[in-house]
Amino acid sequence: MRSRVSLLTHGARRGIITGPRFTSIVQGLPSIVPFVAPEEIERSRGRKFAVRLGANELTFGPSPRAIEAMAAAAADVWMYGDPKSQQLRAALAVHHGVATSNIVVGEGVDGLLAYTAHLLVGPGDALVTTHGTYPTLNYFVAGRGGSLHTVPYGSDDRQDLDALLAKAWEVDAKVVYVVNPDNPSGTWHPAERIEAMIESLPPGCVALIDEAYHELGSDFDANARVAVDDLRVLRLRTFSKGYGLAGCRIGYALGSSEIMSAFDKIRNHFGVSRISQAGALAALSDQQYLQQVRTRVCEARSELEAIARAHNMTPLPSATNFVTMDCGRDGLFARLVLAELLELDIFARMPGAAPLDRCIRVSCSSASDLAIFQQALPRALDKAQARWEK
Amino acid sequence: MRSRVSLLTHGARRGIITGPRFTSIVQGLPSIVPFVAPEEIERSRGRKFAVRLGANELTFGPSPRAIEAMAAAAADVWMYGDPKSQQLRAALAVHHGVATSNIVVGEGVDGLLAYTAHLLVGPGDALVTTHGTYPTLNYFVAGRGGSLHTVPYGSDDRQDLDALLAKAWEVDAKVVYVVNPDNPSGTWHPAERIEAMIESLPPGCVALIDEAYHELGSDFDANARVAVDDLRVLRLRTFSKGYGLAGCRIGYALGSSEIMSAFDKIRNHFGVSRISQAGALAALSDQQYLQQVRTRVCEARSELEAIARAHNMTPLPSATNFVTMDCGRDGLFARLVLAELLELDIFARMPGAAPLDRCIRVSCSSASDLAIFQQALPRALDKAQARWEK
Repeated sequence: MRSRVSLLTHGARRGIITGPRFTSIVQGLPSIVPFVAPEEIERSRGRKFAVRLGANELTFGPSPRAIEAMAAAAADVWMYGDPKSQQLRAALAVHHGVATSNIVVGEGVDGLLAYTAHLLVGPGDALVTTHGTYPTLNYFVAGRGGSLHTVPYGSDDRQDLDALLAKAWEVDAKVVYVVNPDNPSGTWHPAERIEAMIESLPPGCVALIDEAYHELGSDFDANARVAVDDLRVLRLRTFSKGYGLAGCRIGYALGSSEIMSAFDKIRNHFGVSRISQAGALAALSDQQYLQQVRTRVCEARSELEAIARAHNMTPLPSATNFVTMDCGRDGLFARLVLAELLELDIFARMPGAAPLDRCIRVSCSSASDLAIFQQALPRALDKAQARWEK
Repeated sequence: MRSRVSLLTHGARRGIITGPRFTSIVQGLPSIVPFVAPEEIERSRGRKFAVRLGANELTFGPSPRAIEAMAAAAADVWMYGDPKSQQLRAALAVHHGVATSNIVVGEGVDGLLAYTAHLLVGPGDALVTTHGTYPTLNYFVAGRGGSLHTVPYGSDDRQDLDALLAKAWEVDAKVVYVVNPDNPSGTWHPAERIEAMIESLPPGCVALIDEAYHELGSDFDANARVAVDDLRVLRLRTFSKGYGLAGCRIGYALGSSEIMSAFDKIRNHFGVSRISQAGALAALSDQQYLQQVRTRVCEARSELEAIARAHNMTPLPSATNFVTMDCGRDGLFARLVLAELLELDIFARMPGAAPLDRCIRVSCSSASDLAIFQQALPRALDKAQARWEK
């Protein structure tokens, strides 16, 4: 029984209504929204996916302990969550061997990227990133009127740290953004390369290292041996990937307490759900489950690589829960492959920019999900090939 | 079994490390955080509260349907939530008799206030509010370098709409902020006064109406009869108060599709938890429960008013789930009363600024919670009186 509240009545009485005065930066922003969700694709095609392999979600799900903790927390949700996320930060501090003051909890990596842009980017301020890597920072930098400078991926499909550094010196960048392991390529740089980059940063430039996939990179050491209180580095982590809590919107920043306390000056202190805080705490405490996840992701990665090779595609090296597969042709061909997969109810994605747009990107999942993908792939490739040749 | 990840090792190798270059606005912000949560008070006193009557939470809890929906959604939380909150917005559109394009969902009223500040407030831009009303907008405006102008409450403890208007014309305000019903006073303006104010706004000024307590104002019509697509008005609603989902961090803006689409240019599209989306949808669908909540809140409000009067305090009129009680002396006395209540494990709060700081603010709750408050109050008043007279 819903009451219809009458908001639509007589409207404006006067002749001319002046609209709100948006800031000049906002007026200059594009109105096209770059975030097209799987649900949106499902709505537009009027049909659900058979498998969801496009958003790099952990289809294996989070620790059962986390699900339990969240279900239990639902009854207490009439209370606001602790704006400091103190319990979670204390557990994270123990986990990382740092102080709670080195940690800020926020609304996923995306929320923390928005806050980082707020802290560091004013109109015209320079920021350097790789053309085609995770794009959400670019969106928030545009929202601040910042000046985005990009360099291409290296020929090895890795972010080109030397080029990033050279550009940072050239434009006096306030931020160099590195995604490690990278999305959408899946590639990574070992710790010593990141360390060397940090040592060569221009003065007053922060290395913003997006480590969203950190927990899944089992076979490399992504932990650059840099002191957590080093003012040149800011790391972002999330519970969305390895911990399987994408829908919770909870992540954290790791860095010097000086930078962390700056977040407290501008962030929405009541932005994170109380249930998400409980879920993250329980997920963190179940490292045994995370280890199992790593094993399963590793197996699925091998399986996806084998599927790719069996169809003459080249899997890029991956330290994440997805495999980016080089289709061997151009961006148009990859787009056609995706479209054909979608016809077969399979949701996958592809890198948005050249040269990586010759690839499709497929998330790790269960054996049954991958079997559906495996069966569909040759058909999608054949059809795409026929359309591409026209 | 937690692995200790070594982030703390050799630190910086070079001599001088230049810190991050925060924007000049951020550098000018105070480092004192204005958000002191109940948990923080509990931690600092080393003891839990007996009753939690300070945060205007709905201690009766949300609809059981909402709790069920959230517990069920926990298992699916490996998926990101829909960034458009399409299902919830469609249900809200039906509920309000508007289009989905008139609604944006965000991380509670606080999150939506932050986005509104982002859209409208640049350095030096003027905004008008009442000195001592809900302060979070001020925090976000400061974070943008905006220029905050305040007028005092009226002598009737209501926001002074004429004074707000006069100030808005004087300073060429981009935004006039009205909290209706108001926090921390509990008072409200009827629809026709709000309508009249909107008709008299200066050109290019938006009335930002924070209707967080709307669902609890059963005995007044807070719905100004203004078209939802009127470009002069932006309303904020939340699931935190009447719907009892404070910990979910989910609310919505109601307004013209032109303003709503501007939010899409700058908001964190993945800021709201999937579980919160499910909880809000279920809570909205249970209007019968909301009706019961209204009745219980109304009863508790009468009870709190009676308790206040029995101790020679004057309850301010309230259309919310709290009662603001005039202690009849000054701000120091009210602070002492709160401190003494805290000694008795009762968490309440008070308005932060004169003249309302002569009051304490007590949230509606169960009969047993209010009985504890009733028993403690005379003792707290006596002790406060003794200390105040010194």
